[in-house]
Amino acid sequence: MKLAELSTRSGVSIATIKYWIRAGILPAGVKRNATTADYTDRHLARLNLIHLLRDDLDTPIDEIRELTHLIDTHAPNTRIMEKSQCLALRLTHPPQNQDSSEHQRVRAISEQLGWPDVPSWAREELVVVLRRLGDKGLNVDNDYLLEHARAFAKVASHNVGYALTAREPDELAIQVIRGVRLSRDLENAISALAHTSHSLSR
Amino acid sequence: MKLAELSTRSGVSIATIKYWIRAGILPAGVKRNATTADYTDRHLARLNLIHLLRDDLDTPIDEIRELTHLIDTHAPNTRIMEKSQCLALRLTHPPQNQDSSEHQRVRAISEQLGWPDVPSWAREELVVVLRRLGDKGLNVDNDYLLEHARAFAKVASHNVGYALTAREPDELAIQVIRGVRLSRDLENAISALAHTSHSLSR
Repeated sequence: MKLAELSTRSGVSIATIKYWIRAGILPAGVKRNATTADYTDRHLARLNLIHLLRDDLDTPIDEIRELTHLIDTHAPNTRIMEKSQCLALRLTHPPQNQDSSEHQRVRAISEQLGWPDVPSWAREELVVVLRRLGDKGLNVDNDYLLEHARAFAKVASHNVGYALTAREPDELAIQVIRGVRLSRDLENAISALAHTSHSLSR
Repeated sequence: MKLAELSTRSGVSIATIKYWIRAGILPAGVKRNATTADYTDRHLARLNLIHLLRDDLDTPIDEIRELTHLIDTHAPNTRIMEKSQCLALRLTHPPQNQDSSEHQRVRAISEQLGWPDVPSWAREELVVVLRRLGDKGLNVDNDYLLEHARAFAKVASHNVGYALTAREPDELAIQVIRGVRLSRDLENAISALAHTSHSLSR
């Protein structure tokens, strides 16, 4: 399709599309001649992804570029999914190969659950939260972590399976971002209701 | 204590303290004479609460006032706790006494869990999230909701009990806000790790 059609179908203005191409987050169309280029459904999917990240999540262009770079360099799905998760949840602690007591705990729990022992943004986030809790003298026992991890394991397995039905990587990223946020909102709402209900029952 | 001491002990400038008094979120001190007023530990606790809401949560003054008004008019603990939870989680959907299919579902689940059937901000949040999921064709079954609700019920019961050890209402609000946010961060981190682990295991 031509640029004008891409703009109409995506609802993104031509000026914005050109800006995103210059910013390196949207591949240029294939030149047909000096003034015309061809765009495909891949461009449309990319525009949906950028739109989701920009408008719903306020993601800075530089971080969007980290994700689109993975997609455009054919990185494995697991890396695209992890980066999408990072952006959706704003995970900010890069994976560390450390051996703090919190790392050891998370490793021990992962082993019990049969989860891989690999540094990740999510693992680091859990380490940081456990450390913050410990600093406040609020210690969470392993049974608590295991019970919640088991509850989340089922939905995680389902969500990952669903995301992987995506036919191409931009759609995969979109499904992960949407799924992660909806799951999080749902969990937080259930938790909030549990707290309200217990406070009302006293 | 005098204003200067309140400022030193709280780390809040005299100008800011005076502004918060004018804004109606901090009670004035008890006048000793024309130029001096006395402040107590209650003022100190209030300053900690305002500080937490302003600096960590960016809560607008008007919303802080809704909470401090409840405290200053001796509202029941349950209302102080619910308002604190609302602010901590930024719940934005006021309780409705409606009978939508989502309300019916949440009611049915609450009944199974022995939770009170009362409109609340948290219940409305869950209703809205379920509706949003339904709109996207992502239907969550009741077993899922029940399993997660049961996992959260234990920690909710513990958290509510802990918050209620507070000796006075400003401290109660602080403990609820801190607890709600830490619990949420912990749950979200466990969920993120579950998702990463399942995506890596494929």
